[in-house]
Amino acid sequence: MAGGCSGLRDLLGPAASRDNQGMSSPKVLFGFHAVGVRLKTAPKSIIEIYFDPARRDARMRQFLDKVHEAGVRLLEADGVRLAKLCGAHGHQGVAARAQPLAPVKSLDELLEQLEAAQIGLPLAERQAPLLLVLDGVTDPHNLGACLRVADGAGVHAVIAPKDHAAGINATVAKVASGAAETVPYFMVTNLARTLNELKERDIRIIGTSDVASRSIYQTDLRAAVALVLGAEGDGLRALTAKTCDELVSIPMRGAVESLNVSVASGVCLFEAVRQRS
Amino acid sequence: MAGGCSGLRDLLGPAASRDNQGMSSPKVLFGFHAVGVRLKTAPKSIIEIYFDPARRDARMRQFLDKVHEAGVRLLEADGVRLAKLCGAHGHQGVAARAQPLAPVKSLDELLEQLEAAQIGLPLAERQAPLLLVLDGVTDPHNLGACLRVADGAGVHAVIAPKDHAAGINATVAKVASGAAETVPYFMVTNLARTLNELKERDIRIIGTSDVASRSIYQTDLRAAVALVLGAEGDGLRALTAKTCDELVSIPMRGAVESLNVSVASGVCLFEAVRQRS
Repeated sequence: MAGGCSGLRDLLGPAASRDNQGMSSPKVLFGFHAVGVRLKTAPKSIIEIYFDPARRDARMRQFLDKVHEAGVRLLEADGVRLAKLCGAHGHQGVAARAQPLAPVKSLDELLEQLEAAQIGLPLAERQAPLLLVLDGVTDPHNLGACLRVADGAGVHAVIAPKDHAAGINATVAKVASGAAETVPYFMVTNLARTLNELKERDIRIIGTSDVASRSIYQTDLRAAVALVLGAEGDGLRALTAKTCDELVSIPMRGAVESLNVSVASGVCLFEAVRQRS
Repeated sequence: MAGGCSGLRDLLGPAASRDNQGMSSPKVLFGFHAVGVRLKTAPKSIIEIYFDPARRDARMRQFLDKVHEAGVRLLEADGVRLAKLCGAHGHQGVAARAQPLAPVKSLDELLEQLEAAQIGLPLAERQAPLLLVLDGVTDPHNLGACLRVADGAGVHAVIAPKDHAAGINATVAKVASGAAETVPYFMVTNLARTLNELKERDIRIIGTSDVASRSIYQTDLRAAVALVLGAEGDGLRALTAKTCDELVSIPMRGAVESLNVSVASGVCLFEAVRQRS
């Protein structure tokens, strides 16, 4: 599933809403993860990579090996130059200028292509859609962390309501460790309507709620599912919860009442990975 | 298990290393989670709670209801007063002054008490020790997030090597959302030696590694286990990995190569929760 899934996502490219739609000027990526993922998934889109020659540790050496393998243009840049390019913090001594990836399209198109990609595949190799819906995650760190774990679990798209979401910015991209480049992120106008459209495509909508009596471990995640998580504290909005086919909880065994939304996403999404493997 | 476990942890109190050992002066807690957990687990230790009367939303109302129920002294404090008490950011309009909890002791004592607490219990109600070992998590945000998920999964103690760890500070406590108050955290001098001591107590040591061929889902987590996670990027140190009984991986399905350590902790610990439930 790993190869197939990320392959499909490469084919699809990122969601239109993420890539400065309409602009074709190069964008700057920084940090080992973010640059490394672009190097892995779309090396030809990279114009050049900058690195700080003062950093000579194992991580930098491994990174430079990969750059050489990919045949991407490599330039030395000291701290001052890097800071000009991408700010003083968080670049870890590496940055890249790259062409924006060709945007994909709508969630509908993505789902169509996902369905089309299954045709002709042996049953065992088909991948049921796995979607993550974030209802009210407005903090960029949390969104970035959610995108990272969504990518890790092979999620096909992350969906959020336009009015209760964070957009993709530099903070999100950094925390996402490259996943903002690879996981399609769609902000939709009317989340309940989108969830109903997913149902029409036979995607089961599973919401998480602290008060649900069934646990995430008691539900079948092998068929097409969209997992819906709410913001910490508030949880799902009432209409969102009502639109779900089923509500499940993560069993809490201690004193804290809830998990961080990215950790909760990880627990739920990797339960799907477990059931599907 | 939930009640039993957090009950036991209340009984034990926090680890000695966390609570300004030797100092008995009151400490300041802030934020809904951190103050809320102390209110839930040890209300009598709270000297007084401060709240910003300008904040009148549902969350504050629910919080104040709980304070009234617990009979804790409540004082109004405006933003300026709160900022003096606990800094300008992150308090969410609530803070508390509280007595430090009676420290527990050594990891040995905790494990002894945990064993003693099982005696006489029907088999079905016994709780095999579940420990989290963090090898090289030096970032306070990551440590706080790990403590939160450890608490959520009912972990009995978190262990870290003194030389490659973060101590508990205000940032850790805030991110831990109260769990820094409830999960015993032990910084040990020699991690490999501690792991060997755990083995002598029939606790299996399971390390996580990107390159392990078996997945976390292929190992039995129902008996006593310590799950060992390394820092992002570096992973486990060589001696730590060598000391583990078994190495397992989290199957990655996308482009990013690893998960944030708190998310990885969540995925592994809640797999233990699933297997044990």
